[in-house]
Amino acid sequence: MRVEIVAVGSELLLGQSVDTNSTVIAAHLAEAGIDCQFQVRVGDNVERIAMALRAALARADAVVVCGGLGPTQDDVTREAIAAVMGVELREDRDAAALVRAAFARRGRAMAASNLRQALVPVGASIIPQRLGTAPGLVCPVGDRVVYALPGVPRELEEMLERAVLPDLRRRAGSAAVILSRTLRTAGLAESVLAEILEPRFRALEASGPGAVTIAFLASGVEGIKVRLTVKAPNQVEAARALDAEEEEVRRLLGDAVFGVDDETMEAAVGKLLREGGRMLALAESFTGGLMASRVVALAGASEWFAGGVVTYASEAKRRVLEIEVDGVVSGRTAAAMAEAVRSLFGADVGLATTGVAGPDRLEGRLPGTAFVGIALDGEPAEALELSLPGDREQVRGLGTLSAFDALRRRLLTRARRTA
Amino acid sequence: MRVEIVAVGSELLLGQSVDTNSTVIAAHLAEAGIDCQFQVRVGDNVERIAMALRAALARADAVVVCGGLGPTQDDVTREAIAAVMGVELREDRDAAALVRAAFARRGRAMAASNLRQALVPVGASIIPQRLGTAPGLVCPVGDRVVYALPGVPRELEEMLERAVLPDLRRRAGSAAVILSRTLRTAGLAESVLAEILEPRFRALEASGPGAVTIAFLASGVEGIKVRLTVKAPNQVEAARALDAEEEEVRRLLGDAVFGVDDETMEAAVGKLLREGGRMLALAESFTGGLMASRVVALAGASEWFAGGVVTYASEAKRRVLEIEVDGVVSGRTAAAMAEAVRSLFGADVGLATTGVAGPDRLEGRLPGTAFVGIALDGEPAEALELSLPGDREQVRGLGTLSAFDALRRRLLTRARRTA
Repeated sequence: MRVEIVAVGSELLLGQSVDTNSTVIAAHLAEAGIDCQFQVRVGDNVERIAMALRAALARADAVVVCGGLGPTQDDVTREAIAAVMGVELREDRDAAALVRAAFARRGRAMAASNLRQALVPVGASIIPQRLGTAPGLVCPVGDRVVYALPGVPRELEEMLERAVLPDLRRRAGSAAVILSRTLRTAGLAESVLAEILEPRFRALEASGPGAVTIAFLASGVEGIKVRLTVKAPNQVEAARALDAEEEEVRRLLGDAVFGVDDETMEAAVGKLLREGGRMLALAESFTGGLMASRVVALAGASEWFAGGVVTYASEAKRRVLEIEVDGVVSGRTAAAMAEAVRSLFGADVGLATTGVAGPDRLEGRLPGTAFVGIALDGEPAEALELSLPGDREQVRGLGTLSAFDALRRRLLTRARRTA
Repeated sequence: MRVEIVAVGSELLLGQSVDTNSTVIAAHLAEAGIDCQFQVRVGDNVERIAMALRAALARADAVVVCGGLGPTQDDVTREAIAAVMGVELREDRDAAALVRAAFARRGRAMAASNLRQALVPVGASIIPQRLGTAPGLVCPVGDRVVYALPGVPRELEEMLERAVLPDLRRRAGSAAVILSRTLRTAGLAESVLAEILEPRFRALEASGPGAVTIAFLASGVEGIKVRLTVKAPNQVEAARALDAEEEEVRRLLGDAVFGVDDETMEAAVGKLLREGGRMLALAESFTGGLMASRVVALAGASEWFAGGVVTYASEAKRRVLEIEVDGVVSGRTAAAMAEAVRSLFGADVGLATTGVAGPDRLEGRLPGTAFVGIALDGEPAEALELSLPGDREQVRGLGTLSAFDALRRRLLTRARRTA
């Protein structure tokens, strides 16, 4: 069972709007174990929509087309489907009644143009609307089928789940399941990850179809994601295959893996701090509030986050943290900041960043040169040097990730020592 | 001149990642007056990428393909292009030197796999990288051309502007120009904006083809954007039409317009502070470093930004700001925070936020209830109450925008009074 997606809308081709509808449809198809090999976007033009539908139907068993079902003159998806089916459009009595009822429900007067939404290619059936006005369509084309859904995201998703996916599953017989799991890593370059995982690539390739596949996704401040994907006859077998592969990958990558799926670096740090009953204070120079902001984005952060200072200017470091600053780009300053902020907030752990965000050099050092200071429990603070690639935004993002990662690794070491 | 876009990446087909790259490319093409009629997404598979490229080349003069140029085994766009060209891949000496140099620049060891990125189809030329490692490619196919760009958004956009668009413009000869300008607003709801601009909508409609069009784009922490677009025979005429319309719109919207195009709210605030020779200090509770982070994202912010504190917990407000806190969700606390942080950093202006980010109520108040405190020059601090819609992330984003906007309007009033 292969399905393709066609998204209709000139705003997509003009770059005025991001096509999230295709992403939502694709995610649902993947979860249902249905292959999707191509997605196409096309403008509000009858001939070109028909061309896209014909090309998709030549390759796939079914097509989900979204958008272009509204009441205005530029909504022409119905016309294009009728052309592909080689039939006419007729006003469907049920569909017209539903459009009228949708307006009545909201107590609104209906412009006559809205009855365009009740036009249905002869031989197609409708998917009644529950949230808006334009009904969806199920349109047989030989032994294949085109599903047409409205472009409004919540209407689309509701119809997809209620009508399209069940119909696709029925047509597919017992479908396989595609499951993915993402291991999130920090501290290793993409090429280093690839080299470490080389034995797994070879082993998986050798084991033939149905094996887990591994892909990398560099995601800036989110670290590098290692995505495991498998197609299996059912949920249980898919999960079992992912469990086994996750274990292999974790064995090879060790502490570089900080989380799974949506688990962020700061959430991983927060978990370790909470487990150790420690409160964190942050002193940020070039990251400038980015670390604090990511922490406060987590609901419940107040359980382990005491607070922070943004001492971007040297004067602020002296005045607010009361430390000597002989140079901003220095490990000594980073360590002093960590100790000072820990004591300022009465916290257990102080974490500090200082360095050169760019675009200009600072104290003769290149943009991307940075130091992280960590003051943990009663011990003297320590510092480590980083060399971060990219422009100002990237340097700040990667600095945030690296500083949290440095603290995470220290906390892991500490937990193992005391365990 | 017709161009199509092919986005490569299995994560797109699995619905794990939204294809914003195609949107960015499409927007640039539209601005250059170049037609784009189809966009396709395809997985990391040599045959299917080649199939997508062949189909696109059959319809269009040029294809921009993005993604799949990295160093790992699943990056196979180079192989697909070579198959379409009917040539082999060879290691390009210049490309290899550039990949090595990119690593050397960061002082990192290079895994051998990275040299995959220096493989070039025979007959193609490279677009040197300036930000990352994978070079782009310009690949002639008969009288047509395929441009291959890396999938990392900033690298993609940089190469697109530097190499691809100029080359396309040259091939296209003189095309019509589509120009857009965005007026950024804060403080007015979209429906209010629409009502105020109603006379402009009517006037532009009456003036027929070639007129400026107006569209709204609600953009959360970026405010609501009012986009003016015009198609004209050349740059000069397009710019003149936008200038005239901008003047009309500004006359109607007044101070609600805070910037143009990429000018952010914090940049607008920074400009006013610098003009007045004032230094800013921030005290953030529920915005939690988001305000400071947006300020420090601006190069040169140290000219007007003294620093900030993140006092998310009540204890931190007492301990670090040394203020009495009888309630976190209160105008009195916001004003006290603003005064205290101004004095802590020895700044001229203190700006503070406190409130309920959610998801839970705080002190019996609903999520979205928030206060902004402003302490300006020697005067007593004042506070204003906000009611912000949305989830935790949205509340923090809109709180940041609203607090900066409140300060911006105060500074404007002050500047007019003293002028």
